[in-house]
Amino acid sequence: MQPGVFISLEGGEGVGKSTQARLLVAAIEAAGRRVLLTREPGGSAGGEAIRALLMQGDVGRWSARAETLLFAAARADHVERVIRPALATGTVVICDRFIDSTRAYQGAQGMDDAAILALHAFGSEGLMPDRTLLLHLAGHTGMARAKARDGGIADRFGARDTDFHRAVAAQFERMAAADPDRFRSIEASGTPEAVHQRVLSAITDLLDRPGELAP
Amino acid sequence: MQPGVFISLEGGEGVGKSTQARLLVAAIEAAGRRVLLTREPGGSAGGEAIRALLMQGDVGRWSARAETLLFAAARADHVERVIRPALATGTVVICDRFIDSTRAYQGAQGMDDAAILALHAFGSEGLMPDRTLLLHLAGHTGMARAKARDGGIADRFGARDTDFHRAVAAQFERMAAADPDRFRSIEASGTPEAVHQRVLSAITDLLDRPGELAP
Repeated sequence: MQPGVFISLEGGEGVGKSTQARLLVAAIEAAGRRVLLTREPGGSAGGEAIRALLMQGDVGRWSARAETLLFAAARADHVERVIRPALATGTVVICDRFIDSTRAYQGAQGMDDAAILALHAFGSEGLMPDRTLLLHLAGHTGMARAKARDGGIADRFGARDTDFHRAVAAQFERMAAADPDRFRSIEASGTPEAVHQRVLSAITDLLDRPGELAP
Repeated sequence: MQPGVFISLEGGEGVGKSTQARLLVAAIEAAGRRVLLTREPGGSAGGEAIRALLMQGDVGRWSARAETLLFAAARADHVERVIRPALATGTVVICDRFIDSTRAYQGAQGMDDAAILALHAFGSEGLMPDRTLLLHLAGHTGMARAKARDGGIADRFGARDTDFHRAVAAQFERMAAADPDRFRSIEASGTPEAVHQRVLSAITDLLDRPGELAP
């Protein structure tokens, strides 16, 4: 059996993560591998129940500390009930947001990165993706896209101000620079298909028959 | 202004914690102090929303790790939004279960005590009660009482087997023995009024006009 592969997609709101995740799933399935598309927060029955608490309500509904613990709880459930079982059967797991979103969004609210990773060690035995694709869009195009998509009603994170989203972007950049083996930065401007080709180039070394994914 | 006082009540299901909490509130109010009665999990809007996730559903709904993180998140919200503000205004806070219930119930499921305390340090800056009253009832009378009260439908914790409740009781005993300054063991058999007198004796030194609480 081929070993499982764990790929996460990260970046700000509306940068095209979900679209790229779907295109990537189709490409890997076409290459004959079993694929699971999942997301955070959520991805399991318990994770989705916690997601509802996290995404709905006022921006100030939760303190940064309570919020960080809720993300860790949702991730613990998702990892134990969905991601690890899938990896154990050789599946390629594509996850729309994972631990790095907590490091970026809660880090931008002052939560210590080492503390966030300690919660991840406790809840999920520190599971890390084999590859993390960080999608970039210049300026704040991403926020505008996310607002339009949701009919103008942003969730608790999308509703925050420009300074917050700039701080989140800076956190992502810092993490990517610190861990070049795991992270690949992907320019997310252009057509979905053009971005998809960049995504494929960034993960092809992880699959055992990379030729099948070539354009 | 008098300093706030934080008292928790602990013990197994149906041992009489809620009844004793109400009697204690009435006695302290009668002595002229402002009192807040609260509970865990819950006690704040966010805490109660998390409580619903924790108490409902199958016994196996959450892994021990996800459950421990959810309790820490609920407690972080409760401490920041309700308990600390009340203590800051000189209120006596009576809490039906607190951190020691997580240490006992999740500890009985194999969670490390130091890890549970580390989560409490992260979420709630490690706030500890000034006094913890551990109510004891011999045998398993407590479980029988709790089941009768709820019409035979126990929650996710009450539904567990006798060995589990024995392990929980052992965890409580271990904690009380390790911290005699904070813990007082209260024999919970007899009439509610008889138990109440034992409770009063165990907290009177914390209040600045203890004579007013005398029988």
